[in-house]
Amino acid sequence: MTATLGTTSTTKRTPDLGRAVELVSKEEGHRQPLAPEFVSAEDFSPLEVAYDFGKIRREDIEAGPKNIWRYKNLLPVPSNVEEIPNTEPGGTRLVDARNLAKALGVRKLWVKDDTGNPTHSFKDRVVAVALAAAREFGFTTLCCPSTGNLANAVAAAAARAGWDSVVLIPKTLEKAKILTTAVYDGALIAVDGNYDDVNRLATQLAAENETWAFVNVNVRPYYSEGSKTLAFEVAEQLGWRIPEQIVVPIASGSQLTKVDKGFREFGQLGLVEASPYKVFGAQATGCSPVSAAFRAGHDTVQPVKPDTIARSLAIGNPADGPYVLDVVNRTGGAIEDVSDEEVVEGIRLLARTEGIFTETAGGVTVATAKKLIETGKLDPDAETVLLITGDGLKTLDAVEGKIGPLATVAPSADAVREALRNR
Amino acid sequence: MTATLGTTSTTKRTPDLGRAVELVSKEEGHRQPLAPEFVSAEDFSPLEVAYDFGKIRREDIEAGPKNIWRYKNLLPVPSNVEEIPNTEPGGTRLVDARNLAKALGVRKLWVKDDTGNPTHSFKDRVVAVALAAAREFGFTTLCCPSTGNLANAVAAAAARAGWDSVVLIPKTLEKAKILTTAVYDGALIAVDGNYDDVNRLATQLAAENETWAFVNVNVRPYYSEGSKTLAFEVAEQLGWRIPEQIVVPIASGSQLTKVDKGFREFGQLGLVEASPYKVFGAQATGCSPVSAAFRAGHDTVQPVKPDTIARSLAIGNPADGPYVLDVVNRTGGAIEDVSDEEVVEGIRLLARTEGIFTETAGGVTVATAKKLIETGKLDPDAETVLLITGDGLKTLDAVEGKIGPLATVAPSADAVREALRNR
Repeated sequence: MTATLGTTSTTKRTPDLGRAVELVSKEEGHRQPLAPEFVSAEDFSPLEVAYDFGKIRREDIEAGPKNIWRYKNLLPVPSNVEEIPNTEPGGTRLVDARNLAKALGVRKLWVKDDTGNPTHSFKDRVVAVALAAAREFGFTTLCCPSTGNLANAVAAAAARAGWDSVVLIPKTLEKAKILTTAVYDGALIAVDGNYDDVNRLATQLAAENETWAFVNVNVRPYYSEGSKTLAFEVAEQLGWRIPEQIVVPIASGSQLTKVDKGFREFGQLGLVEASPYKVFGAQATGCSPVSAAFRAGHDTVQPVKPDTIARSLAIGNPADGPYVLDVVNRTGGAIEDVSDEEVVEGIRLLARTEGIFTETAGGVTVATAKKLIETGKLDPDAETVLLITGDGLKTLDAVEGKIGPLATVAPSADAVREALRNR
Repeated sequence: MTATLGTTSTTKRTPDLGRAVELVSKEEGHRQPLAPEFVSAEDFSPLEVAYDFGKIRREDIEAGPKNIWRYKNLLPVPSNVEEIPNTEPGGTRLVDARNLAKALGVRKLWVKDDTGNPTHSFKDRVVAVALAAAREFGFTTLCCPSTGNLANAVAAAAARAGWDSVVLIPKTLEKAKILTTAVYDGALIAVDGNYDDVNRLATQLAAENETWAFVNVNVRPYYSEGSKTLAFEVAEQLGWRIPEQIVVPIASGSQLTKVDKGFREFGQLGLVEASPYKVFGAQATGCSPVSAAFRAGHDTVQPVKPDTIARSLAIGNPADGPYVLDVVNRTGGAIEDVSDEEVVEGIRLLARTEGIFTETAGGVTVATAKKLIETGKLDPDAETVLLITGDGLKTLDAVEGKIGPLATVAPSADAVREALRNR
């Protein structure tokens, strides 16, 4: 990492990262100052943000804005973050999913519908935090390698902040995903290679360009903290308590570990009772290295070559895989995986019962919850939350050819009635 | 209208429509009891809901849910509406659009970003209110004729409420719009005809099926009241005050008249100071009957045959056209229209400056605001709000071929730098 404090003219001042105080390595707990670095030089494990929270009260959070900045004192962002141009993600619905609960045979079920974010996925949360932290470190260009949701979120947030953006995508990406990123008018660059090539290129570019913040590379410790806000919102929306069970999709695994971190921090701060909870992980069988490791009782993850329609979860070598296994085992949860057919069924089940149209990742979560209930791993009598993190409008190909009009009829009332009779 | 009180077994009880007390005809003010009717038998003008509000305080609204039901006492819905399964639209962002303000040369600009709603358009607001009122009248099937956003909203809300739905579409509708409606698993029926045929069929079916609520036909007076929540939210989010200028897209014209009604009700109730405001209307030139009437100084609207990419605004014979002219003239606003090229430029301008990707209707609003500023009709020193009512993900064809990657390069840092240099 070459982009460190003081390397550009705009970084002379001390970064204000709120109550964040240092970075800690996940393996051996080595401590180092806050900087745009993501891996420990001591033990080569990922770095995570540590805080000196002091006192944080419910009233202060409740008096904040109706977006993730209400939790600013629990994030590595400046104390005036809500005044700085950025997106305003969060504050999404927690839906009392009575119909889905009935269909799955569980007592009480909630769906956290994160499709309401500015670019319709949870990535807006992590990108907004990454942008706020990157600004403090003096970066001026927001970047990422991506195949979809992240590209949208980075390009949109940079536009709003008045930053340049550089988004790298494999040139084979679907037209819709190209359009939904290009419209924000940053530098969208198609790379003649697969996602692994694009990712390697991003790491190289991050090291070579001191004003470029690759949200999921050199500022990853800050970026990933944004996922905690999913846990914070769920707990606050439940009336300041932690749910007994939560099902989280696994891509890199970062989100799942941060949801756990969010619940623990809320408990430690006395914002909620530190009640026990179980974290469950969801993968598509076509990319299920963490699920396979869990099943085999391993504590490391064997990389795989992804082959699934759930492309936003298709990370064959998930960086936080081992930490996901830690969280799931510690909390008494489980990990399962589901076929692509089950993913589509999951999408349709959620739409049919709750009127929420999710992308394939949400289909994975719903279908995995169903499987966990059927196999007795998820307690149907315990209150459960499903994280629905992305939007069906972005993965229309998953349902194409499987759904359509009931009938095509002549413009007459009789023809409509006839069509309905034959339903 | 045959679907009246007491015609089905579920309608024995008196409908609870909150503080709504009667229907009033818009032309001559004839009063009649609340019922699922939409046109006055006395003067053949549209019926509108009238209320006996009593006292409504800011504190009661602020203590309500973070969605449109916080305004339940100003809507024709039951007093326990938030406990009944329905979608929970509203609570969408009001964005301080500093970059767009600068680009347009205005002092203070806000963008109401209604893409955050459950199915990503303002239609969720009106449909949720229609469903709540329809339930009180004993209807059990939610219906509409539609070419897009309304179809999504009706099918989703019905699914969530556990109702049947019947959605009628022209069979030529784009595949994406068919998929995003069909996924909710109601009765989606493709009709061999154009939108006018579908609309006529809906009116006939509404009259023949006493349990079918066509949201925009037989329960239209209730449905349209949902648009007031856009005005309520804007005023509350501004800190309980009315903006000086607001730009609203015109399809049927209902939304614009209801935004005005919302501001007036808030003023009458003392929830905000009844300060003056100007309402501006936006149309695409390819379907601009209200703009043409305004320009000619007429008080009625000559129907046109729509030909524009802004299909969600393409109503050639807008039902509320004359009332739009009333509101705009009374408040001292104006109406303008913009070409399809300007619509695309408007979409791109909003995305580039604020990171918000809107559908063609939003492009109409942004481009019209630009034109109104350039022609001196909109005061650049007065605070202005733009209503962005739908999502760019639903009208990708509008930008296709016009935007794309900056370059396609080999997977090397040099190639990326070279591409950026040539930008």
